Amino acid sequence: MTSQQLHDLGGRSRVAGRVLATASTAAKDAALHAAAELLETRSAEVLEANAADVAAAQEAGTTATVVDRLRLTEARVRSMAAGLRQVASLADPVGEVVGGWVRPNGLQIRQVRVPLGVVGIIYENRPNVTSDAAGLCLKSGNAALLRGSTAALRSNQAIAGVLRDGYDKVGIPPDALLLVEDTSRESVVDFMRMRGVIDCLIPRGGPSLISAVLENATVPYVIDGDGNCHVYVDAAADLDMAAAIVVNSKTQRPSVCNAAESLLVHADVAERFLRLVAPGLAGVELRGDAETVGILGADRVLPATDEDYAREFLDLILSVRVVGDLDEAIEHIRRFGTGHTEAIVTSDLGAAQRFQREVDAAAVMVNASTRFTDGEEFGFGAEIGISTQKLHARGPMGLRALTSTKYLVVGSGQVRA
Amino acid sequence: MTSQQLHDLGGRSRVAGRVLATASTAAKDAALHAAAELLETRSAEVLEANAADVAAAQEAGTTATVVDRLRLTEARVRSMAAGLRQVASLADPVGEVVGGWVRPNGLQIRQVRVPLGVVGIIYENRPNVTSDAAGLCLKSGNAALLRGSTAALRSNQAIAGVLRDGYDKVGIPPDALLLVEDTSRESVVDFMRMRGVIDCLIPRGGPSLISAVLENATVPYVIDGDGNCHVYVDAAADLDMAAAIVVNSKTQRPSVCNAAESLLVHADVAERFLRLVAPGLAGVELRGDAETVGILGADRVLPATDEDYAREFLDLILSVRVVGDLDEAIEHIRRFGTGHTEAIVTSDLGAAQRFQREVDAAAVMVNASTRFTDGEEFGFGAEIGISTQKLHARGPMGLRALTSTKYLVVGSGQVRA
Repeated sequence: MTSQQLHDLGGRSRVAGRVLATASTAAKDAALHAAAELLETRSAEVLEANAADVAAAQEAGTTATVVDRLRLTEARVRSMAAGLRQVASLADPVGEVVGGWVRPNGLQIRQVRVPLGVVGIIYENRPNVTSDAAGLCLKSGNAALLRGSTAALRSNQAIAGVLRDGYDKVGIPPDALLLVEDTSRESVVDFMRMRGVIDCLIPRGGPSLISAVLENATVPYVIDGDGNCHVYVDAAADLDMAAAIVVNSKTQRPSVCNAAESLLVHADVAERFLRLVAPGLAGVELRGDAETVGILGADRVLPATDEDYAREFLDLILSVRVVGDLDEAIEHIRRFGTGHTEAIVTSDLGAAQRFQREVDAAAVMVNASTRFTDGEEFGFGAEIGISTQKLHARGPMGLRALTSTKYLVVGSGQVRA
Repeated sequence: MTSQQLHDLGGRSRVAGRVLATASTAAKDAALHAAAELLETRSAEVLEANAADVAAAQEAGTTATVVDRLRLTEARVRSMAAGLRQVASLADPVGEVVGGWVRPNGLQIRQVRVPLGVVGIIYENRPNVTSDAAGLCLKSGNAALLRGSTAALRSNQAIAGVLRDGYDKVGIPPDALLLVEDTSRESVVDFMRMRGVIDCLIPRGGPSLISAVLENATVPYVIDGDGNCHVYVDAAADLDMAAAIVVNSKTQRPSVCNAAESLLVHADVAERFLRLVAPGLAGVELRGDAETVGILGADRVLPATDEDYAREFLDLILSVRVVGDLDEAIEHIRRFGTGHTEAIVTSDLGAAQRFQREVDAAAVMVNASTRFTDGEEFGFGAEIGISTQKLHARGPMGLRALTSTKYLVVGSGQVRA
């Protein structure tokens, strides 16, 4: 695909976006339901395309983990359809009055939520993102311009085709969902530079994608970044609670960004706590400082380097450090954290308050697992990602993160003096 | 200044930002008052530095308009001090609870406003921006890292020096305000790439600065862009009101971004309206379509090109077009507008509603001058700029636009199943 072709796709997205911007909630929900129904009735078509992607990936020697991410099943397709229906059931953010007031000169000002326009998403192998992202964009009144991976192209084409047919059935423009079919490395840079077409780019991928966006993008974007999440066990912690939280944060799903990567323990309780938590972390490789090694032994704990403390393992590995006090814990998090999710376990109100005030992260937890930083768990119904930046949206991004606002001003002839 | 020096400044900003993030409203307000008082008592120092800048600019043959922007007077310095006191009087956005709820599992979630951290601002000749921006950043708990122009360097240094002394007097770190003294072209690119230091960049300047930001910035930014603002006079307009609004929008202060640049008139009232408004636009050059020329005559109206319709004149020039209906007006704005401020004058509710719904701009006005898109006029007390982008902030940016949020989650041992 040449840039001209990308440009044509962009033009179609913008036209669709304009229609969606003023589409009623009922019309958008009908399209989501129609798409969900078609996904179920035409699942064989989706699974067949997916089988071709999976076979090609296996032939190319792709790792089992990656193939698993790529693979769809009847159950996964049903879950995509359920996801679309779930999004239909959520409140429409468009039109929400964020605030309103009257000025002394009588001007009435309202700030209302409006769609962004065209949302561009770059993502990797999971084909369900095609459906999930399309649903969230549609509900929030945005056209979705999606760019998935080469490995998932056939699956994505099949899913997008089905969804577009669903939209069309109820009078929503099918171009509300467009898939970029040129998945070459060059075209991804063109995609990031579609200024005037893409109103918001959400790159969902690893560090190399993120740095490509920082270097090349001219469109506005929201970064869904790394999570080097810490759990700090305070001197005043309920140690059983702390052990449950640490084990859950680390092991419940180690491959995701809100899993804990590092454990900080107050020196006063280090010995008792580390012995208490160790059995629950039986399958976890520990990399600790000298104190941790001294308590649990060199056969259980590898020595940790600064690289270990800085790393998002996304695996059954946990870095551990014994700290002298709350200040040292906060300073460690300042140095190594990525601003995603940080948790303290404590019964001390003052410590909880200081931790929540001084730690700079999208979510700061007291006595809860880091795994709760998630759109569903926060009650947003669904999420398009988790922002680790501070502008526009921070933390789990639900439908509101896919909107902007505009000011509606109504006067009766006011002019400025 | 080398990159290393910029890096050192950045490090100092970050340290100051951390202190400011948890500073009390009382402490920040005391610093603003102390800075305002010092500005008044040391105004001679500021005016002396400014006189040197003005003399150098005049010697270099700078235009009178630019010299005027650069020039400070006793009254302008007093007005800067009054601005700082005004900001002190505004509500502190930090700590504001944006929302809060309890999840079925008992997790308590609050979303609270927090400072961004370090705000970087690139600006041109007006030295008052140094004080205005510093005040808004301080009140919102952010360190300000400012980069003004070469021509205003002595003025900016004097103002920053006075403000820093004011902060210091009441125990706020003076590094809450830092001025980049290397104003070379190369250093501006380094400035835009201070990722990990600058949490939000606000470039305040012309198109060449904006494209430099789009091409080079790796830090998050908010664009304060052009305003090609339209006034559309509908068939159902009160024509006297419309004339007052058009004249005010165009002539009250033609050099600013919320001044009108283009007039659209419904064909049904074009003849009457154009004859009615013409005397009020006596000093304004008109560039119109054939219908406008036909009505007002070729000696009054130059023929307009598409370039005229696309242009932000920032001068006493107005492009004019007669349109067949509301759709044509909306389509013209879609094609030529910059998403800043668009106004309709009408007594027809349906037309007003459609215009506000379908026109995609930061502010959409009914029966009011475009000149009202302004932080003070909106009631924000002050503004750091007017965003023409859709992410983070759109329209006039007050103190809230200088904040992010974080989620505070409090549990009692919850883990994910």
